[in-house]
Amino acid sequence: MSHTAILLINCPDRKGLVAKVSGILYEHGANIIHADQHQDHEAGLFFMRVEWALDGFALDRFRESFEPIAAELRMDWRLELSSTVTRMAIFVSQYLHCYADLLYRYKSGELACEIPLIVSNHSGARALADFHGIPFHHIETSGANKREVESRQLELLQKHRIDLVVLARYMQILSPRFVARYPNRIVNVHHSFLPAFTGAKPYHRAFERGVKLIGSTSHYVTEVLDDGPIIEQDVMRISHRDQLEDLIEKGRDLERVVLSRAVRWRLAHRILSYGSKTVVFD
Amino acid sequence: MSHTAILLINCPDRKGLVAKVSGILYEHGANIIHADQHQDHEAGLFFMRVEWALDGFALDRFRESFEPIAAELRMDWRLELSSTVTRMAIFVSQYLHCYADLLYRYKSGELACEIPLIVSNHSGARALADFHGIPFHHIETSGANKREVESRQLELLQKHRIDLVVLARYMQILSPRFVARYPNRIVNVHHSFLPAFTGAKPYHRAFERGVKLIGSTSHYVTEVLDDGPIIEQDVMRISHRDQLEDLIEKGRDLERVVLSRAVRWRLAHRILSYGSKTVVFD
Amino acid sequence: MSHTAILLINCPDRKGLVAKVSGILYEHGANIIHADQHQDHEAGLFFMRVEWALDGFALDRFRESFEPIAAELRMDWRLELSSTVTRMAIFVSQYLHCYADLLYRYKSGELACEIPLIVSNHSGARALADFHGIPFHHIETSGANKREVESRQLELLQKHRIDLVVLARYMQILSPRFVARYPNRIVNVHHSFLPAFTGAKPYHRAFERGVKLIGSTSHYVTEVLDDGPIIEQDVMRISHRDQLEDLIEKGRDLERVVLSRAVRWRLAHRILSYGSKTVVFD
Amino acid sequence: MSHTAILLINCPDRKGLVAKVSGILYEHGANIIHADQHQDHEAGLFFMRVEWALDGFALDRFRESFEPIAAELRMDWRLELSSTVTRMAIFVSQYLHCYADLLYRYKSGELACEIPLIVSNHSGARALADFHGIPFHHIETSGANKREVESRQLELLQKHRIDLVVLARYMQILSPRFVARYPNRIVNVHHSFLPAFTGAKPYHRAFERGVKLIGSTSHYVTEVLDDGPIIEQDVMRISHRDQLEDLIEKGRDLERVVLSRAVRWRLAHRILSYGSKTVVFD
Repeated sequence: MSHTAILLINCPDRKGLVAKVSGILYEHGANIIHADQHQDHEAGLFFMRVEWALDGFALDRFRESFEPIAAELRMDWRLELSSTVTRMAIFVSQYLHCYADLLYRYKSGELACEIPLIVSNHSGARALADFHGIPFHHIETSGANKREVESRQLELLQKHRIDLVVLARYMQILSPRFVARYPNRIVNVHHSFLPAFTGAKPYHRAFERGVKLIGSTSHYVTEVLDDGPIIEQDVMRISHRDQLEDLIEKGRDLERVVLSRAVRWRLAHRILSYGSKTVVFD
Repeated sequence: MSHTAILLINCPDRKGLVAKVSGILYEHGANIIHADQHQDHEAGLFFMRVEWALDGFALDRFRESFEPIAAELRMDWRLELSSTVTRMAIFVSQYLHCYADLLYRYKSGELACEIPLIVSNHSGARALADFHGIPFHHIETSGANKREVESRQLELLQKHRIDLVVLARYMQILSPRFVARYPNRIVNVHHSFLPAFTGAKPYHRAFERGVKLIGSTSHYVTEVLDDGPIIEQDVMRISHRDQLEDLIEKGRDLERVVLSRAVRWRLAHRILSYGSKTVVFD
Repeated sequence: MSHTAILLINCPDRKGLVAKVSGILYEHGANIIHADQHQDHEAGLFFMRVEWALDGFALDRFRESFEPIAAELRMDWRLELSSTVTRMAIFVSQYLHCYADLLYRYKSGELACEIPLIVSNHSGARALADFHGIPFHHIETSGANKREVESRQLELLQKHRIDLVVLARYMQILSPRFVARYPNRIVNVHHSFLPAFTGAKPYHRAFERGVKLIGSTSHYVTEVLDDGPIIEQDVMRISHRDQLEDLIEKGRDLERVVLSRAVRWRLAHRILSYGSKTVVFD
Repeated sequence: MSHTAILLINCPDRKGLVAKVSGILYEHGANIIHADQHQDHEAGLFFMRVEWALDGFALDRFRESFEPIAAELRMDWRLELSSTVTRMAIFVSQYLHCYADLLYRYKSGELACEIPLIVSNHSGARALADFHGIPFHHIETSGANKREVESRQLELLQKHRIDLVVLARYMQILSPRFVARYPNRIVNVHHSFLPAFTGAKPYHRAFERGVKLIGSTSHYVTEVLDDGPIIEQDVMRISHRDQLEDLIEKGRDLERVVLSRAVRWRLAHRILSYGSKTVVFD
């Protein structure tokens, strides 16, 4: 497939927005491959994602024409190029199922990214990193050294020019300082159907409560724990026959699928977030 | 189908329980149609449901033999006869979808019960009750007359010898006094995936939170709001394209299915509840 | 809500289609409420659905401007007005669950249509029609009188100016002659996950085959049995514990939901069909 | 967890079977951990699975007492010991997602088996086998050498005393001769919701047919292609936005989950198959 450009727009809703954007793209000869838009009538917001082929397309001239219009319409926008591969870091702790899953998908070509960095507070994750030939950094964590640990992690992210951090069951809470550095750039998976069972040990609490479905949620990380915009959720039926260990085992399959979908969509620049919500163009 | 007996057992787990129960049934010549059991290893509890044909079965003699054994094994048990039809009341307010659904299922023979009583704090539910020829009682509610209203409702329940009360989107909170009179005999449907969004306006809050699935839960009513043992749950996928009204509309289908399953299982004596949990033998 | 217009387009794909359509709408001052488009790259086709408010919108002038452009771009298009309520007929046989469900949804305002006609080859459906005050025609069918029966049905459809025929478990196969009169205007529900178990007794065959999920499918009726474009499908988990009757009972809930979704989408003019496929704008 | 014994029974249904089996287990002092039974009333068959702890249990004496009873009741039965680890071989071709998934689950302790043998007609699967330290045999296949290839494969299976063969998207059809050697011991995954789209290229055909859900099926291999007893199925929603490649990509997640469930259940001796059906005790 040839290279494409992806334009993502979030702006106050008003008449003629689609006409404006599609008109200017047409004038510049864009061959649109996908286009989708959404209006949140209540919030008075307009969202758009357009993807077009870049062969023979004068991107600079388009940008020149588009910028004043975007400014006039108070657009929050960005232009992504499929040729600019996202640089993704994975943070992982002792549970390796999401991590192994992401690495397999990466290796098999399912994830359009580079993974130049893996960070873990456990050494158990090293073997898979080595197998895939990805630099692995084991950074021990304890309550005491949190600030120091995060400083070192942030250094590594900067050094490797990381665009996206994926928490693949990373069992440490990131500080507001860390989160603020990567807004809408940290994706986490929580092993419950949020907002049920926020915080620790959600399977234990689901088991105690006697729910009939367990869930998993991928979301952007914000300062408030388990409260960021939800990207994807899924559930699985359980019954009284399932013991706590069954919930944990079944849940692993949910977590892997739900996290990998979020990552795939993020890499395809399909997610727009606003307030506590996301628009996921599928 | 011929008449059957259903034995439901809940007792401390120990060796030989299945052998004991199935042995005594065999001695009395029971032709078992369904049997299921469950052990909660953590709680040390044993649950069993056995159903057998009654033709030629000496029920009284079985009961005589079984009672001392049950006492010895500290069984909490009951014996239900398919010939004794459950007498069910429906409580409903202004939203009629669950109510209409239950009445249709009742009429078409899907629910093995009698419905001698419908109670509503809205008059809109009367037409359907009349169509199906079921006595309808319109009892206005207001904060002030709650105790009086409940007294009148309890009288009606007693007068009609009601075994099971189904709250088909009944929008009043029952007092502890009321609930205590019908333990494990009041089934409610909550329009969220409990324990998320307990209390009022769950769709509004789900919409605000930006969840990607909406859910519905049927449960026994206990003193604590939306906290009783869960009988059934289901969910439906939504997206950013769904406005609040779409959630409400889609949710109606969930509520109907989830409530009707709970009612059907209850009528078939398939539910055993303990603590905050249920065992649903399917 | 105020009245809206809905433009549905199906045409060969080419550059600038969105710009053209949105541009002309903007020129005429349309306040777009929903817009969605889709490209089938393989088939080289473009599909679009736009909905806009009609207050102060000069529909005739828009139509004048749009027609030549549509002709030039070889568009297959239609313009629907929310003020023109679809006239829907229901055909039903002895199984009444889908029929009762549609009537309830109709009565409660969920279906934006009029139902001036119910046709059945069984008299059992009459009571509900009477309750809802809808003219009911009982037309007996037998192999011998099929042509005559269909002629009478077609007459009724014409007389009542029916736009859409819904087969709510109508157990007669319509002749090609009949189908040809209402292309993409007859919606059926088949009680299997098509293309598995086409034809008669799908639950029996699903039971024999030992599947672990049962399904239901709503589709447009074409000359070839159970082969028309699929509008919606859903499934439900079953297990070895489910007997044939359980499949039939559980399946009823699937059928109702799957058919009602198709009807709702059709009434909202959200479905575009081409070849054996549908585009359903959600 | 201590070692357990698992008794699996399939026999003509008659009164007193549960009493007999649980009685004899009780007499020998078995501490039952799980027990489940099922009656197929139509076929007149009875199925049972009982699992009990082995500490202090005289297995030989139990077997002596049980054998004559089993013979008398015409039981088809087997006794499995959790201490006897199943020896499993994986066959794989060019698509590695199910294979990689099984190996990861194996390594992380989720699959209670040994994998002493991997066979592939492609060399691409070697790296993962090496990483996990499992002997890998690359056996090229062509139409011409099929008999020879299978002979070599059967030799390997015998040499490694393989109990269970898992076809993890192995793209060769096994001959009746091969299948007959491992009845109910070869598990395959088919990338469709069987019986829809049996045979080759199911995603292509699903895409052409315009289905709204795609599925995946794990089943025992029998002489007739894609016709063996179904163990597990699952589906995923798709829409018109999904192109063929999306179906293939999404389907991979289904295939992995559906195959791994079947393998896990098989290893836990939870599956009883009869005719074209399975009983899966959960």
